[in-house]
Amino acid sequence: MKERIYKIIEKAEDEDVVSKIFDYAIIILIIASIASVILESFSGFRTKYDYELYLFELMTVAIFTVEYFLRIWTADLKYPQKKALAARLIYLFSFMAIIDLFAILPFYLPFIISIDLRFLRVVRLTRIFRLFKVNRYSDSLQLIGKVMKEAKEELLTTIFLMFFVILISATLMYNAENSVQPDVFPNIIASLWWAIATLTTVGYGDVYPVTAIGKMLASVIAISGVGLVALPTGIISSEFMREISKQKVCKCPHCGGDIG
Amino acid sequence: MKERIYKIIEKAEDEDVVSKIFDYAIIILIIASIASVILESFSGFRTKYDYELYLFELMTVAIFTVEYFLRIWTADLKYPQKKALAARLIYLFSFMAIIDLFAILPFYLPFIISIDLRFLRVVRLTRIFRLFKVNRYSDSLQLIGKVMKEAKEELLTTIFLMFFVILISATLMYNAENSVQPDVFPNIIASLWWAIATLTTVGYGDVYPVTAIGKMLASVIAISGVGLVALPTGIISSEFMREISKQKVCKCPHCGGDIG
Amino acid sequence: MKERIYKIIEKAEDEDVVSKIFDYAIIILIIASIASVILESFSGFRTKYDYELYLFELMTVAIFTVEYFLRIWTADLKYPQKKALAARLIYLFSFMAIIDLFAILPFYLPFIISIDLRFLRVVRLTRIFRLFKVNRYSDSLQLIGKVMKEAKEELLTTIFLMFFVILISATLMYNAENSVQPDVFPNIIASLWWAIATLTTVGYGDVYPVTAIGKMLASVIAISGVGLVALPTGIISSEFMREISKQKVCKCPHCGGDIG
Amino acid sequence: MKERIYKIIEKAEDEDVVSKIFDYAIIILIIASIASVILESFSGFRTKYDYELYLFELMTVAIFTVEYFLRIWTADLKYPQKKALAARLIYLFSFMAIIDLFAILPFYLPFIISIDLRFLRVVRLTRIFRLFKVNRYSDSLQLIGKVMKEAKEELLTTIFLMFFVILISATLMYNAENSVQPDVFPNIIASLWWAIATLTTVGYGDVYPVTAIGKMLASVIAISGVGLVALPTGIISSEFMREISKQKVCKCPHCGGDIG
Repeated sequence: MKERIYKIIEKAEDEDVVSKIFDYAIIILIIASIASVILESFSGFRTKYDYELYLFELMTVAIFTVEYFLRIWTADLKYPQKKALAARLIYLFSFMAIIDLFAILPFYLPFIISIDLRFLRVVRLTRIFRLFKVNRYSDSLQLIGKVMKEAKEELLTTIFLMFFVILISATLMYNAENSVQPDVFPNIIASLWWAIATLTTVGYGDVYPVTAIGKMLASVIAISGVGLVALPTGIISSEFMREISKQKVCKCPHCGGDIG
Repeated sequence: MKERIYKIIEKAEDEDVVSKIFDYAIIILIIASIASVILESFSGFRTKYDYELYLFELMTVAIFTVEYFLRIWTADLKYPQKKALAARLIYLFSFMAIIDLFAILPFYLPFIISIDLRFLRVVRLTRIFRLFKVNRYSDSLQLIGKVMKEAKEELLTTIFLMFFVILISATLMYNAENSVQPDVFPNIIASLWWAIATLTTVGYGDVYPVTAIGKMLASVIAISGVGLVALPTGIISSEFMREISKQKVCKCPHCGGDIG
Repeated sequence: MKERIYKIIEKAEDEDVVSKIFDYAIIILIIASIASVILESFSGFRTKYDYELYLFELMTVAIFTVEYFLRIWTADLKYPQKKALAARLIYLFSFMAIIDLFAILPFYLPFIISIDLRFLRVVRLTRIFRLFKVNRYSDSLQLIGKVMKEAKEELLTTIFLMFFVILISATLMYNAENSVQPDVFPNIIASLWWAIATLTTVGYGDVYPVTAIGKMLASVIAISGVGLVALPTGIISSEFMREISKQKVCKCPHCGGDIG
Repeated sequence: MKERIYKIIEKAEDEDVVSKIFDYAIIILIIASIASVILESFSGFRTKYDYELYLFELMTVAIFTVEYFLRIWTADLKYPQKKALAARLIYLFSFMAIIDLFAILPFYLPFIISIDLRFLRVVRLTRIFRLFKVNRYSDSLQLIGKVMKEAKEELLTTIFLMFFVILISATLMYNAENSVQPDVFPNIIASLWWAIATLTTVGYGDVYPVTAIGKMLASVIAISGVGLVALPTGIISSEFMREISKQKVCKCPHCGGDIG
């Protein structure tokens, strides 16, 4: 019976109808749960359906809690070569188990420690992370994750460079514009907002330079922004290429030897 | 005679003058048809040339209807190894036949079922899809289509990730800004508009955060936006590379045989 | 003597001092010429130094005219295997000769045919094309040009797709927003301006949707815009890779045979 | 003892505790130094803690000055195959030594030559370059630097092309919009601001065309902007690929020897 439960809560195999129904039910529940968070943000809806929203919350958390403990219980079937306790501990600290915990924790937390209600509202948002469960079934997310992991060092260096350029440009812009627009660029921290909006080419238009020097600076930074977009793209492209070429093994059809 | 008609309506071979004239006539008709949709949107023009627009519409639909049925009739020459009925059914559900149907359907639909006139105006827009007919003659569209198809899974995952980041950031921003700007961020759905404009780096400037927390959030999301642009670009780049390298034939230096 | 002139006006070899001086003089003249166009746009400067600007214009055109005819005269040394007349005709229709002609034509044109003075001002701008002369000396511009030429078909298809998405989205947006914002979206042509600003992620903020349907549409288009940026980038990346890998010839150091 | 000092100020080896403490202390000092620059920009903070900021400045410059001279003194251990003086000169003009000099120079400069105090404030900003010291310890920054160096020529050509497109579009836009919006597009230099904001897709929205011709021009330029973003991305992608494939060792299937 334990094996049956394990097979149901895991990704369904082709012929396993019950497991498939379970998979789709979980996906629907996740989407409904997210919809309830969105609907709750409408003040009219919140006032009118406060009780229904609470009931739905109760039901979702109950189901996800049962599912969470079933997954821990069947963890020894997931890692058969490990001992029962070791398998459960490995599972507990796996990425997916932490996501599962985050989905139910915001409900139980106020019972354990007293939390400010306003802050609680923000914590409950972690429920949206349940969406990642849908992706448990996706292969290409793993490929993307692998590529990001391989390129991690280069990407972090790019973010560091970005941060560096943002800091330099914000400081320069503060010096160029502070005397003319003291309300818009009162200090370097406020200039950072402008620098980020420009370097990422978002450009809301709420903050922009008006002096000649400020505009020259902004031009240099906007053009640098194009380069800083090109850098992570180039890194990710080449990493994707490497990942794909790894999978391809070139063998000579005649002599059978590896090539490349 | 059937074979002659088939050759005329298909892409022209080099020496076939009549077929070439047909091809160009269809392209001109499509462009004129699109021009009429654009001109119709000018209220002054619409009032003045209402009758002429209707006549042109009648003519275009007539020609495209005849062409549609000729294509179905000659479908057995397109798939010679299939039976006549099977060939026609295969053609009927091909991408190009559906585009052809969409080009004429909006005219006939109101005769069959009663449709609200205002809605009808929107349906008639599908006529613009006729432009795809021009591309029936393009090779590189097929290459692009092939690349997109190969990268479909990764691109869909990227869109899912994008949707995820948009949802998270919209919810966080709603919590950060709602109390200060209740008109701009009244609920999560309204915040989504801001999140999409920021993550895609469009940045209209109609909605932007004013609080310190809101600006920090927006900064993180704008920088994430750069990464989310890099992801599909990297995927498409590597897929293009793979497609091109497939065409390249390598030879084994030992035996001289082709290596895939 | 003819050969000496040819060597002077062509790109300088390392030891040829006169030719090098000529090269730098031409570059300085081009930059000064562009500076004069920019300075002329300041109404105060134009009024004050009208005569000096005219004198400088006269001098530049004189020098470029002499250079243009010297280049035609020495064209037979550029293509030594061709006959004198054929070489000159080939040169006349080369890209660089046309740029050279454009640099002097706006001055002579009003003497031949009568042109409206306002239009003349715009034609004179072609002088800026002289900047391309500086690049005659650049290798990497040729690599970029080669890559763009190889990828031409795919890039044109991307532009066609872009045009298609712009047309569709402008038409849909016109239908969604026209009744609410008749001044902002009066017709499809006006909506095109919005569609281009959104798809290219420029987002000035002068035109944006306010209805729920309009915002949903804009979201879809902004996200499509990310994809349409990824497409040309992917094409150009893969083309650059192919161009670079062409230059690399893998030879086995042992047996000397080509690999890959 | 000299060797001990050299090992301490250089990147720490795994077991060297003192050297590690030194490394972290320098990083903390750099970050604190940057924080002080940011805090100084708040006029309230500057007035209140003027003396404390000056003391901190004194301390930082003292430490960095001692470190600077220790690095010069131990330079002969860094380049053991060179003579002592030659090694020090090589180090003095290395990238990192110049950064180190820039970090302390703004403090000493006013003692040597008299500088306007307002300008001094801007010069002191170079202190932020100290952040690069943190990166002395990073490998992937070197990879990025190498890729940028290899792609330098192509990237400079792209910047030249960008500059060319910006100049052309600013001049055309000035001619198109000057008569309608004389305040927004008073001369070509002012139009450059618009051209850069559009081509880099920042789009603040402070300056945009209103005439039909101006909007057409802006559309063409915004679409070109997408291409000009794609160009550097493609260049950097292919260069990253080449750098990575260099590291990959291929073997000849015939003789088993390494193939570069």
